[in-house]
Amino acid sequence: MSFEQMWRDLAPVGRSASSGGYHRQPFTAAEREAAAWFVEQCRARDLDVRTDAFGNTVAWWRPGPGGSAEGAAPGAAQAAEPGVVTGSHLDSVRDGGAYDGPLGVVSALAAVDLLRERGFTPTRPLGVSVFVDEEGSRFGLACLGSRLMTGATTLDGVKELRDRDGVYLLDAMAAAGLPVADGTEVGPGGGTAERIGCFVELHVEQGRDLVHRDAPVGVASGIWPHGRYRFDFHGQANHAGTTRMEDRRDPMVTYATTVLAANEQARLAGQRATFGRVDVHPNQTNAVPSRVTAWLDARAESRAHLEKMLADVERLAGERAGRDGTTVEVVAESVSAEVVFDPALARRIAAGHEGGDWPLLPTMAGHDAGVLSAAGVPTAMLFVRNPTGVSHAPDEHAETADCLRGVEALADTLERLAGPR
Amino acid sequence: MSFEQMWRDLAPVGRSASSGGYHRQPFTAAEREAAAWFVEQCRARDLDVRTDAFGNTVAWWRPGPGGSAEGAAPGAAQAAEPGVVTGSHLDSVRDGGAYDGPLGVVSALAAVDLLRERGFTPTRPLGVSVFVDEEGSRFGLACLGSRLMTGATTLDGVKELRDRDGVYLLDAMAAAGLPVADGTEVGPGGGTAERIGCFVELHVEQGRDLVHRDAPVGVASGIWPHGRYRFDFHGQANHAGTTRMEDRRDPMVTYATTVLAANEQARLAGQRATFGRVDVHPNQTNAVPSRVTAWLDARAESRAHLEKMLADVERLAGERAGRDGTTVEVVAESVSAEVVFDPALARRIAAGHEGGDWPLLPTMAGHDAGVLSAAGVPTAMLFVRNPTGVSHAPDEHAETADCLRGVEALADTLERLAGPR
Repeated sequence: MSFEQMWRDLAPVGRSASSGGYHRQPFTAAEREAAAWFVEQCRARDLDVRTDAFGNTVAWWRPGPGGSAEGAAPGAAQAAEPGVVTGSHLDSVRDGGAYDGPLGVVSALAAVDLLRERGFTPTRPLGVSVFVDEEGSRFGLACLGSRLMTGATTLDGVKELRDRDGVYLLDAMAAAGLPVADGTEVGPGGGTAERIGCFVELHVEQGRDLVHRDAPVGVASGIWPHGRYRFDFHGQANHAGTTRMEDRRDPMVTYATTVLAANEQARLAGQRATFGRVDVHPNQTNAVPSRVTAWLDARAESRAHLEKMLADVERLAGERAGRDGTTVEVVAESVSAEVVFDPALARRIAAGHEGGDWPLLPTMAGHDAGVLSAAGVPTAMLFVRNPTGVSHAPDEHAETADCLRGVEALADTLERLAGPR
Repeated sequence: MSFEQMWRDLAPVGRSASSGGYHRQPFTAAEREAAAWFVEQCRARDLDVRTDAFGNTVAWWRPGPGGSAEGAAPGAAQAAEPGVVTGSHLDSVRDGGAYDGPLGVVSALAAVDLLRERGFTPTRPLGVSVFVDEEGSRFGLACLGSRLMTGATTLDGVKELRDRDGVYLLDAMAAAGLPVADGTEVGPGGGTAERIGCFVELHVEQGRDLVHRDAPVGVASGIWPHGRYRFDFHGQANHAGTTRMEDRRDPMVTYATTVLAANEQARLAGQRATFGRVDVHPNQTNAVPSRVTAWLDARAESRAHLEKMLADVERLAGERAGRDGTTVEVVAESVSAEVVFDPALARRIAAGHEGGDWPLLPTMAGHDAGVLSAAGVPTAMLFVRNPTGVSHAPDEHAETADCLRGVEALADTLERLAGPR
């Protein structure tokens, strides 16, 4: 099946008729439908599909005659040499774009097809993967599947996570029929990680560097450190009409000051700071709120820059809270360290192509690739040009011609990594 | 049944176990339970209960021998002299206090009991009332019941109102079993207004004027003009990590500036401005929002002051939107004109009591009394002291001794208005 046909297959799954954006929150019907589609595609290609206790899936193309699921007993597969794995995720942010995640999955399947057309057979196992819950859009913790798989996060550490409707993560996983819900003991790996010897993730670019460099494809050098911080502003609920302005303890005012402070700090320092999510109580037009909770997404070129920016925002928020008679508490919900992808691997992937080397560029977005890299897996990322740079939104886009160049680039990369050395 | 016993009866209805606040949104189970309790109390007092097509209820104590429901045929009742009506509402804001509304209803019933103990019999009909949906906490339009009853708002004008779950007002009314849902033609009045010759509403004070004046009870002089304005800030959804600060069109930043501008304008001018409700799309930690919708509650001592404050906030919001690459649109969802309560009636109620006249004071809160006054009904309000001034929040409070003084004051007032002139 062609790249274009696969893309058309996935297009309606979880798509909003009004915005055209995608709602594929983890363990929902839409995301499960996409996951089932992936398994079906892998089976149609005679790959050996393995799903771990958390729902992460790797489908293997094994070396040797046949090379298929029938070609190796499961016991033998477990003991096999660690393989080269490529893939991405199928979940989306709320009202997200079509490309973030699925492009890497569909390109991985298309690259397998292309390699077979070229008559290539791998000399080490070659896996196509989907990790669950990359965006953290439902339970607040990004890269959940890869974190659990690599042991960066433990089951104990996520037991208390709930979505906005109060559904616990493990209940949502149980509803999706995942083995973790059986109470089976699952250690780090959950059955998958120890077989990933090298990981390559293809992803739509989320900025416009490749547009400026006039290149359809690039290679990631690393990922900026990134934190998600919950700000709880507490004040006193009161009547919006009868309470004099000077008698109020209005947390919305403290919040507003904090939004502007974060925006200014990030601008001044050339970093990133965003308040994109807010929850207000009681959220009533004619009541001064008792509480405003808001989440700061902060990213910077280094850990030191990130910490300085957060400290500056916290200080400014606290100063304003003192004047407003409110309080502010800050909790780091997740902090991801800086990632530097394996430089030798990146050079090996980027160098020596017709038309010159592929450009190397940093990214400010978190990815499963970053989690695997932090876990010691040699890891690389390929980016496909995005004409507007828009991401996490319905307008996210990549031209089909560029996507097909991405598939070729991924196939070339896999040939280098899984072929004769 | 004593005031205290009635208060205990109502206390658990719609009360949140976690905050202690009340959730009695109109046409929900909790609010319907309170409404049914009221009808039961009226029947137990042998009052003639009349509910109009919209759910507003007036229960009549008629002059003459018997004076009860049995004492007058329905036809005769329709043609009777307009009466003196006292009451309030039983719905609440989200997580509101116990007193706003119910104090006026329970005090009305207790005042009837006290008048009967005193051996008083009215020389004109005396009604005890509950109007539906005073707070506007579900469909956004305050004083809905009294507006429909007086014709200030038509059924056509509210057909499109929906709650946050998308439920249409008329469907919610139908679910509550109200006659309006039968498609019956209902003109202004819906069967009630033309029989209200004079209206008195007792209410917990929502500020601390009575504390400063050392008085348990006061009389309202008028209500400040009041508007609810929806601000729609539009920008462009984008990735919170990869989008450079200078490439963003972030409506949250424009919103934050507007919150601070409104707060500052109200402070400078001695008026009131509150942003207490916000709705963000997609409301995702790692996405720049595409849209922020927020509601400004603004109140001022005169229409001119209100309009100037709104114009200043709009101008400042628009200027910032221009710099942020966002847009802002403002829609007035409801504007209530200034109310000056009948000055002769207020003086008649306030003057000549043991211990001196009751103080006269303005209020910044909207009430059904304001709607009836605007419709030409001679109207008055009594306030009962609130030690903290907190309102629309779980901490809203009045001491029982002050509440009982309020019942006496209301009974005295009804004696003056419904007794021999």
